[in-house]
Amino acid sequence: MKLTKYLSVGAALTLLPTFALAQDAAPSFDEIGPYLMTTLLFLIGGFLVFWMAAGFAMLEAGLVRSKNVTTQLTKNIALYSLSAIMYWLVGFNLMYPGDAWIIPGWFGTFAPTSLEPVGLAAADAALDYASVASDFFFQLMFCATTASIVSGTLAERIKLWPFLIFVVILTGLIYPIGASWQWGGGWLYDMGFYDFAGSTVVHAAGGFAALAGAIILGARIGKYKDGKTVPMPGSNLALATLGTFILWMGWFGFNGGSQLAAGTVGDMTDIGRIFANTNMAAAAGAVAALVMSQVMYKKPDLTMVLNGALAGLVSITASPLEPSLFGALWIGAVGGIIVVFAVPMLDKFKIDDVVGAIPVHLIAGFWGTMVVPIYADASFVTQFIGFVAIGGFTFVISLVAWTILKGVMGIRVSEQAEIDGLDVSELGMEAYPEFSKG
Amino acid sequence: MKLTKYLSVGAALTLLPTFALAQDAAPSFDEIGPYLMTTLLFLIGGFLVFWMAAGFAMLEAGLVRSKNVTTQLTKNIALYSLSAIMYWLVGFNLMYPGDAWIIPGWFGTFAPTSLEPVGLAAADAALDYASVASDFFFQLMFCATTASIVSGTLAERIKLWPFLIFVVILTGLIYPIGASWQWGGGWLYDMGFYDFAGSTVVHAAGGFAALAGAIILGARIGKYKDGKTVPMPGSNLALATLGTFILWMGWFGFNGGSQLAAGTVGDMTDIGRIFANTNMAAAAGAVAALVMSQVMYKKPDLTMVLNGALAGLVSITASPLEPSLFGALWIGAVGGIIVVFAVPMLDKFKIDDVVGAIPVHLIAGFWGTMVVPIYADASFVTQFIGFVAIGGFTFVISLVAWTILKGVMGIRVSEQAEIDGLDVSELGMEAYPEFSKG
Amino acid sequence: MKLTKYLSVGAALTLLPTFALAQDAAPSFDEIGPYLMTTLLFLIGGFLVFWMAAGFAMLEAGLVRSKNVTTQLTKNIALYSLSAIMYWLVGFNLMYPGDAWIIPGWFGTFAPTSLEPVGLAAADAALDYASVASDFFFQLMFCATTASIVSGTLAERIKLWPFLIFVVILTGLIYPIGASWQWGGGWLYDMGFYDFAGSTVVHAAGGFAALAGAIILGARIGKYKDGKTVPMPGSNLALATLGTFILWMGWFGFNGGSQLAAGTVGDMTDIGRIFANTNMAAAAGAVAALVMSQVMYKKPDLTMVLNGALAGLVSITASPLEPSLFGALWIGAVGGIIVVFAVPMLDKFKIDDVVGAIPVHLIAGFWGTMVVPIYADASFVTQFIGFVAIGGFTFVISLVAWTILKGVMGIRVSEQAEIDGLDVSELGMEAYPEFSKG
Repeated sequence: MKLTKYLSVGAALTLLPTFALAQDAAPSFDEIGPYLMTTLLFLIGGFLVFWMAAGFAMLEAGLVRSKNVTTQLTKNIALYSLSAIMYWLVGFNLMYPGDAWIIPGWFGTFAPTSLEPVGLAAADAALDYASVASDFFFQLMFCATTASIVSGTLAERIKLWPFLIFVVILTGLIYPIGASWQWGGGWLYDMGFYDFAGSTVVHAAGGFAALAGAIILGARIGKYKDGKTVPMPGSNLALATLGTFILWMGWFGFNGGSQLAAGTVGDMTDIGRIFANTNMAAAAGAVAALVMSQVMYKKPDLTMVLNGALAGLVSITASPLEPSLFGALWIGAVGGIIVVFAVPMLDKFKIDDVVGAIPVHLIAGFWGTMVVPIYADASFVTQFIGFVAIGGFTFVISLVAWTILKGVMGIRVSEQAEIDGLDVSELGMEAYPEFSKG
Repeated sequence: MKLTKYLSVGAALTLLPTFALAQDAAPSFDEIGPYLMTTLLFLIGGFLVFWMAAGFAMLEAGLVRSKNVTTQLTKNIALYSLSAIMYWLVGFNLMYPGDAWIIPGWFGTFAPTSLEPVGLAAADAALDYASVASDFFFQLMFCATTASIVSGTLAERIKLWPFLIFVVILTGLIYPIGASWQWGGGWLYDMGFYDFAGSTVVHAAGGFAALAGAIILGARIGKYKDGKTVPMPGSNLALATLGTFILWMGWFGFNGGSQLAAGTVGDMTDIGRIFANTNMAAAAGAVAALVMSQVMYKKPDLTMVLNGALAGLVSITASPLEPSLFGALWIGAVGGIIVVFAVPMLDKFKIDDVVGAIPVHLIAGFWGTMVVPIYADASFVTQFIGFVAIGGFTFVISLVAWTILKGVMGIRVSEQAEIDGLDVSELGMEAYPEFSKG
Repeated sequence: MKLTKYLSVGAALTLLPTFALAQDAAPSFDEIGPYLMTTLLFLIGGFLVFWMAAGFAMLEAGLVRSKNVTTQLTKNIALYSLSAIMYWLVGFNLMYPGDAWIIPGWFGTFAPTSLEPVGLAAADAALDYASVASDFFFQLMFCATTASIVSGTLAERIKLWPFLIFVVILTGLIYPIGASWQWGGGWLYDMGFYDFAGSTVVHAAGGFAALAGAIILGARIGKYKDGKTVPMPGSNLALATLGTFILWMGWFGFNGGSQLAAGTVGDMTDIGRIFANTNMAAAAGAVAALVMSQVMYKKPDLTMVLNGALAGLVSITASPLEPSLFGALWIGAVGGIIVVFAVPMLDKFKIDDVVGAIPVHLIAGFWGTMVVPIYADASFVTQFIGFVAIGGFTFVISLVAWTILKGVMGIRVSEQAEIDGLDVSELGMEAYPEFSKG
């Protein structure tokens, strides 16, 4: 490549005199700079959010028992891959229909994603925005995140293929439609709903899809016994911690990239605010959960600290830009406290959420959505409507989808398979075949 | 530091009279913007490809048995480090000789790499390209990748030091010479061979070096018994999955950075295309391998899915820019299918490739190289010649090197050492000393 | 550094009217480009250094015995989170007091950090610098790194809460005050001390805080018996290696971001030099430690190789810009050799440093600081004064803090708790509950 580039530079040089004279050939860097910066933002933000897929995989692999680790890893890499395909095939254009709504503001259009031609001329580019490919790349990661949330809740008892079919429905239809109402410029957006990077659109939606699945699927064998909740400790807390750090890192891309522009002083400075606030909310969530678990259980609980950090991140995601650092601190801290209370509360309802994804993504997502008006220009009523609309839509369609999948092919492994572990029964492949079990 | 810098910039300005005539004072951002963007591309691309070294380490550590994990980790960090030193001492200038070929188009020159002076003045910079240091940093990662590929195939039975000596030869001589034929502007480049980011130049080359080693070294004890292949499952599939995600992430830098320019709308938009296509090919490879392993073995196979994703990535690496997203999908999917068939095929020939690196890098690398003409301006014949030339050269020289190493110092550990595991016998240090083996 | 920066902003403002006249409304990209690039540098550098927090967590979790892994993970995520809060509440403004020193050059001021308003206008921005939020985000990571260094040394016997209280003191007071003397434009800076990215200011400071703790805390039970050092092998060398790769990757941001400017050819080219040198020093440190451990112990030692790479990184951190690649090589190699000698030396003094943080960060930090004058404009005497000043200050205050903590609440777990492991005794939660211990 190196030579080619030099050659094309050589070719370009012959055009330079005109350039120097009147600018009428190539646009100046002054004109294209913002386009380059925003495209770069999408690419950096995109690979950071991609990294979150690995984070979910590690978090979940660490929090399930070792007999289900291979299955959990398989689900995570498969769900990401299917999301990438579905978002190309349907999702992106369904979510961003532009003027091509089938039902304006409510239901978009179907078409696979096309990219710009190779070597796009500046004259043909949306110079006040960014490259379509980079935007697609970035947005697809959000779609995949929604699916990642579901896999953790339903771990240790769901069959692989029905789960993946649900992922196809979620990432090809449910998420893009709900997201179009807000980020595609649909009715929620028109109403003034405010969700900067997706406390509701991504996290609560994922949480509601998970909740629907958990209800239809039922709890793991032995989880609730004689009115008591039986702890089923994760097999590898080092992996779970690594997963949390990965998610935290990726979240800088998730929230920072959602500024969607990086070519002005205002935009780039805002991205700096978002990074600082996102970090603060996560830190505060972790510390709050640490202190709360010490106070309530007399012993610090690492899994609560990890989920506290994640809840802090979800909480700040609806408006990572507007709060002060102190605002981010208390918003995140409340998120961390929510988790410590919500985890046992879910158990009371016998909703078996293996990794705590519903407290982290749905409940802290609700909190993050509702707290927006304190710092940003939004109304509590509209925030509530938005949460209920996207949450309710996702929940109902997911419930229907899970019910159909249950009826048609079954979604739960046999009792014996669950006891033996999904790795042996479903895949015939253990994650740690040499380490004997205690 | 900044103060010093501004002072030295100030000093430099006095040397810029010609420039000053046209421009008044310092060069405008308009003139230096492309240089800054491309240098930044190399730095971001470079740290992403660096990250692939960690990915290979985790993938391989997860796919070997626990008794060989420490050795595998040691090899990976050592091979990366040696590559970094060799590429400085010999590789970079041998690969990019400019006008200083010893045999024009075939054999470059020897000289350690020098960087630009501190605080380079704009007038002294290659404003239509990028900083030499950033280019060196980026290119060195490709050299190290080639070596990483070899370590996986030869795991669990090769001695540490002969392996590292081979790495020195591979990264100091074999890879740079082969790569110079194409990326250094040598005879293959002149002939019209097309390999954007290295399906042949990096991946197949690494695969051929591994194949030569596997032939000379022989299979692990007990791998092929009574005409049957005995499975030797990896000790930690969570690590292997983490490694795959790391490689996937790093590949955005590998392919995206290979655009080698980021200062125009066309270049930056192309990088966006490359990111989207790279991701699509990996996703399609993973899904294809998942489906194929279900169809062929009735059970999904996680290691096939991981290798399927990697094969998808290798497949798209020769032309990640030109295909449409649909093109990337089917190119990657075929890569994933190739792996499912190639792994047992290699076993038929009793070539013992511990992690499946030859199917992933050599065979999918061949596929990726040969499919280029469908979307890009290249000829099947030339693609074939390029693959055979670099592959054959690497294979033959590697075969000679391995044979000499075998004769001079032996490359294989003793039978007892292999049975005991290399960690105890070679290093006296276990990776998981407390976990009892089942 | 910041002080210089704000002053130069002041100077620049006097030139602005003319500029404004010519420009009327929005500033051109030409004017804001450097601001955007430097802000972007801080954000990318910042998330890379954030990633080092995960690196320390994995390194330490891998090097402690499995009965202490959960506690080590909890400490790492908690110390990072507390650092983030303390650096906002006190640290940033204490470290960069601008004109608001309480004792000029020695002791700054107290105030929580405020960010710029949302949507900052270009006219209100420090166009010759970067966004405050991005600077805060970047600098906070250095503060957290200092605390990360301490946790490794004191592992396996320190109580959680006293450790976290020390972290609050270290990140809120000790580090910011010491760092203000140099990077805040204090007396050491005025004297000509040179520490580009913190061999002394960050690494040796962390090492001295750890050393003080290790002295007050004492060695682990059974570590030194009958005049002999008893090896206590880490439980998971794959994690430790992953941690090292993460740290290596993050160090590109640590050193590269410390250029503090990316908007000119000189600055961006320098960042390229820094990346290349940083990588070379790490590689040389790893290879040197590999060879030395082979020579001295007849067997390569992976933990030495990992610490060798890290020592190479610490060694180059005081001047990653100025040396040639060959300079980086030998500076890093000496760092790697230092580790191989310093680890047993510390054991002679019965200073029990679980992960080798004192050799890596304090001793290689000393080496890195003292070698600066060979390539950069600095004096050996001043370098020595700087090291002693920051090191001595950190050591004495830390000693006092640890002593008070010991007296008030005790810092060491009970003998039984230490034997049982901190995970069971302190947290009631094992990291690998299913893997039986050998």
